[in-house]
Amino acid sequence: MIAILKQGTTPAQMQHLVDWLKHMNLDVHVSKGAEVTVLGLIGDTSRVDMELLKSLEMVESVKRVSEPFKQANRKFHPKDTIIQAGHVRIGGGYFAMIAGPCSVESEEQIIAVAQSVKESGANLLRGGAFKPRTSPYAFQGMKGEGIRLLLEAKKATGLPIVTEIMNINTLDLFADVDIIQVGARNMQNFDLLKELGKTQKPILLKRGLANTLQELLMSAEYIMSEGNEQVILCERGIRTFETTTRNTLDLSAVSVLHKLSHLPVVVDPSHATGKAELVPPMAYAATAAGADGIMIEVHNNPACALCDGAQSLTPHQFHEVCHKVRKIREAIV
Amino acid sequence: MIAILKQGTTPAQMQHLVDWLKHMNLDVHVSKGAEVTVLGLIGDTSRVDMELLKSLEMVESVKRVSEPFKQANRKFHPKDTIIQAGHVRIGGGYFAMIAGPCSVESEEQIIAVAQSVKESGANLLRGGAFKPRTSPYAFQGMKGEGIRLLLEAKKATGLPIVTEIMNINTLDLFADVDIIQVGARNMQNFDLLKELGKTQKPILLKRGLANTLQELLMSAEYIMSEGNEQVILCERGIRTFETTTRNTLDLSAVSVLHKLSHLPVVVDPSHATGKAELVPPMAYAATAAGADGIMIEVHNNPACALCDGAQSLTPHQFHEVCHKVRKIREAIV
Amino acid sequence: MIAILKQGTTPAQMQHLVDWLKHMNLDVHVSKGAEVTVLGLIGDTSRVDMELLKSLEMVESVKRVSEPFKQANRKFHPKDTIIQAGHVRIGGGYFAMIAGPCSVESEEQIIAVAQSVKESGANLLRGGAFKPRTSPYAFQGMKGEGIRLLLEAKKATGLPIVTEIMNINTLDLFADVDIIQVGARNMQNFDLLKELGKTQKPILLKRGLANTLQELLMSAEYIMSEGNEQVILCERGIRTFETTTRNTLDLSAVSVLHKLSHLPVVVDPSHATGKAELVPPMAYAATAAGADGIMIEVHNNPACALCDGAQSLTPHQFHEVCHKVRKIREAIV
Amino acid sequence: MIAILKQGTTPAQMQHLVDWLKHMNLDVHVSKGAEVTVLGLIGDTSRVDMELLKSLEMVESVKRVSEPFKQANRKFHPKDTIIQAGHVRIGGGYFAMIAGPCSVESEEQIIAVAQSVKESGANLLRGGAFKPRTSPYAFQGMKGEGIRLLLEAKKATGLPIVTEIMNINTLDLFADVDIIQVGARNMQNFDLLKELGKTQKPILLKRGLANTLQELLMSAEYIMSEGNEQVILCERGIRTFETTTRNTLDLSAVSVLHKLSHLPVVVDPSHATGKAELVPPMAYAATAAGADGIMIEVHNNPACALCDGAQSLTPHQFHEVCHKVRKIREAIV
Repeated sequence: MIAILKQGTTPAQMQHLVDWLKHMNLDVHVSKGAEVTVLGLIGDTSRVDMELLKSLEMVESVKRVSEPFKQANRKFHPKDTIIQAGHVRIGGGYFAMIAGPCSVESEEQIIAVAQSVKESGANLLRGGAFKPRTSPYAFQGMKGEGIRLLLEAKKATGLPIVTEIMNINTLDLFADVDIIQVGARNMQNFDLLKELGKTQKPILLKRGLANTLQELLMSAEYIMSEGNEQVILCERGIRTFETTTRNTLDLSAVSVLHKLSHLPVVVDPSHATGKAELVPPMAYAATAAGADGIMIEVHNNPACALCDGAQSLTPHQFHEVCHKVRKIREAIV
Repeated sequence: MIAILKQGTTPAQMQHLVDWLKHMNLDVHVSKGAEVTVLGLIGDTSRVDMELLKSLEMVESVKRVSEPFKQANRKFHPKDTIIQAGHVRIGGGYFAMIAGPCSVESEEQIIAVAQSVKESGANLLRGGAFKPRTSPYAFQGMKGEGIRLLLEAKKATGLPIVTEIMNINTLDLFADVDIIQVGARNMQNFDLLKELGKTQKPILLKRGLANTLQELLMSAEYIMSEGNEQVILCERGIRTFETTTRNTLDLSAVSVLHKLSHLPVVVDPSHATGKAELVPPMAYAATAAGADGIMIEVHNNPACALCDGAQSLTPHQFHEVCHKVRKIREAIV
Repeated sequence: MIAILKQGTTPAQMQHLVDWLKHMNLDVHVSKGAEVTVLGLIGDTSRVDMELLKSLEMVESVKRVSEPFKQANRKFHPKDTIIQAGHVRIGGGYFAMIAGPCSVESEEQIIAVAQSVKESGANLLRGGAFKPRTSPYAFQGMKGEGIRLLLEAKKATGLPIVTEIMNINTLDLFADVDIIQVGARNMQNFDLLKELGKTQKPILLKRGLANTLQELLMSAEYIMSEGNEQVILCERGIRTFETTTRNTLDLSAVSVLHKLSHLPVVVDPSHATGKAELVPPMAYAATAAGADGIMIEVHNNPACALCDGAQSLTPHQFHEVCHKVRKIREAIV
Repeated sequence: MIAILKQGTTPAQMQHLVDWLKHMNLDVHVSKGAEVTVLGLIGDTSRVDMELLKSLEMVESVKRVSEPFKQANRKFHPKDTIIQAGHVRIGGGYFAMIAGPCSVESEEQIIAVAQSVKESGANLLRGGAFKPRTSPYAFQGMKGEGIRLLLEAKKATGLPIVTEIMNINTLDLFADVDIIQVGARNMQNFDLLKELGKTQKPILLKRGLANTLQELLMSAEYIMSEGNEQVILCERGIRTFETTTRNTLDLSAVSVLHKLSHLPVVVDPSHATGKAELVPPMAYAATAAGADGIMIEVHNNPACALCDGAQSLTPHQFHEVCHKVRKIREAIV
């Protein structure tokens, strides 16, 4: 960590700061230049409160030179992490095609969708049982019963399942779930992350709406620092001023995360865009950008004329997406 | 709620949509114009999934005309809500001057700060016991012991206390806390909000970094819909592209929230700006904008040369702020 | 255009508004619902000041149902526009591979780069002669001499050239330029757009850092409404809170623009990301998303050890990008 | 300027970089720490292309320690600049109350508004003659005739006038204008800024919708570096994700700009919020934050029932605002 001191800092002020830093078991290397004095902090700087340091009157700016995340850091773990979820692998060349309905609604629905997406090429089944909703009056999901139905669909198709947790007190219900999802709104629910870190389940961690990639990695670190290294990162769009799409899908995140971390990165174009017509092109773009997987909402209700065109793809559209994703993966090898 | 249909929607498609809406116990009023067909949905539209409706192929756009929040809505509750926290009132002309250290560090510290800010004019004491930190390696607060020390300071000074909860499983520790704070990162931790809605404690709900004012009100609604109407809203800066301040303080929020809701609105200039020198002008601006209170970090460590200039004010600076805030309140009556 | 009136609007207020709208040669269709009154405005609403209408006390909200752009609108021009720049076509299945150095520096440099990128597969040459720079003290480009050198490179290789204009008073210098670029900072320099609309040159119009896609199309409309229909839209990243990339490349823009407009859409991953290592994956992603072209900075200075890794690709890296872009285009057909 | 090199940079690579920097007439001070090497660049770094430096493979990060603006910099000009516009002073304790209609519409209108706002306490008259509009089909202002009418109003009331320029080729029309405004969309129209720098007119420079405060100061520097030091900075709201206000007014900007620069800072709450009801509280907040002036839209059309509640204040509302602004200014002395 580097701290640049303002011109005009007195030797006494600087000494105060150096003493305080040494008190935190850091070595401090002072370099006085013509215009500026730079302090190099050596040792375990992950405990240093960078915001506090920045806010000091005498400090011009602070810059980490080693990232504050350790276990998620590629520097200390150069090889891609490969996550094992049931019989499926994700990362290091293994691609996750995660598909399923927004919410689990009935046994017939979830089994039919599961069979359909499996035939098209999905290797993981998603479906919402606990649903985070902006309004307390909106449908909040089938909860425990939804998980039970997902497990029926898993039994029927062999597809491992991915579903979201919102409250650590419901963890027991996730005993047979293959990948536990943490939603965007809970990305910095640190107590939840720590408890999930004590399990040995793969965790799919979604980026918060306004969180930087470094914050996403720090949240992964919360899970990993408790002993669970099975974390999958998920880009799902960030909040910007643009209003034609629900969120702005940040595909540069795939390469940036791959460079900084060894963890696999999947992309969710359905939630990012909020429009079915944008899902296929963004699924192709995510694949071309090097994602380790994509996560797509698919419905299976031929009677529901309404559903066509909504955020979920039809099984037929999903089949086409799977086909082209495979071709793009061959093209970028 | 109004749904505008795209040109070219067939009568059969429209009928499907109308049937689906009626199935949700809504009356639908169809208005065919020259260029466009507008559906007016009448009834309890708070359960309608607006995102789903928007994402339908045939739908051009959807617009709520009645806000989706009810209990927080000024339309149904025209008078300002006045919150009672201990002997202190907030809202409806009563002003909260909330001050205290970022973190509780020791009994001496918290009592000394409490006495000092009380003398200057604070009527509520804040202090962090559970600290949400981006890094798992950073200091996470004194936790239960921190709350115990806050209660000692309350005993010593009579100031009611405000402190943050991060995990519903620690609720018992907050039995004697006067106002429970929900931090920005937990603004959409809906399960936490619902549990707090079952208490009768005043809740200080901070706006999330990238949450709209309507989402803030919907989160207040989560608490209120469970029976707890004692909610204080808090603006504390939003995330934007600007980097000279930690966040961008959105002071228009004060008037907008006052117009939409009867709940009191306080402003936290310390976290919003991250620099002590910006705290006084933003405290004055918040007061002039009509806030029902401000929340300021104050430290009390004359030996700590470091602390001057950091995000926290010195007791002397805080004294000056209290004085000018009083004068501005008189000026805008 | 739809205007939704607030509950409680009096008949007299509404009549005032209706009279005012009729005064602008609009027909007004009034639809009174149970909760809300909707005015449907019929006629040429492109002249209506939507911001003014929105700001009226009695108006709840305003929604355009027909887009305010006409000539750029796909509804009135369903077929893809194909732009002809020299012998090269762009749009409607024709792909622009635009490459060249950030700035023109010398005749040797620009001719060498031009020859190199042509061999790899570029069909258009880019290079900055007039450089918009945040600082008045930074190098502002070779200006007229830079354009002269680009024309030499065109003569040597046959590649049509693309270069940026910053001031309409320099238009004469662009007489032999094939495509005139309008930079992000000038996207809403309306007087410049209008003057370019009076030429018959293809215009490459870059999206502003904080402009919506609708504003981009309105700026295209400024050019087209003066008679020049040869507009190429360019996505080059938007400003968000994320700091690991210079900007956030918004690839959904490609599909959204293709849906709304018949104009070709190219993507500039070099400026969007600011890091060479991110340029290839974002070039692949843009291609997979359906872009009509990409625009890449390439340098050609084997002696310059510095340049490797900067925002510009080496000729060798560019060669690889061209190869994979071709393969991805085949994959998504 | 400080450049931090990545671990693993070879001595040869570093030497290349040092040679290149020295070639730009900079002294380079190399400081090798345990984890990191820091280069301190000494000399005129305002010409260094920071983006290029950052993008180099071997460079971890770059940090300016001296701001890139010189003439706008308070370090080199500690005293507040006081701008003289006609007989009115702005800055250094002198407050500008700028008021007038959005657009000049007729001689009667502009003179009536001018007389009214003068009586309430305005000391400068604003009014749009050239109007930047998103749509080419919208009313673009009365142009030269609008300026002529503003000059009539100036003659009638003695109020100096402020109006916007969009195109340098119209500069002659501004000969008798007291303050020339550069709008948000032209904040980085560098050629326009340079030409205005050659005049001796006070320039009111509005912050762009997505421009940082440092970029605003660099645009002021464009004007000042050509010889015109009469620049007034104007905060008018930035673009964020929030949609209840047209833009988000960033009032921290006032203090930040005052700290970095000696130039006066005014605030425009009318354009920032887009709603009349938000203008008074934001005018009070801006005053309390220490602004050197505010700029408010006022209409004067008692017959226009429509206008009440729109973005413009009525003369009566403006009168009240002037009164409270005076009281707040006294309170914060």
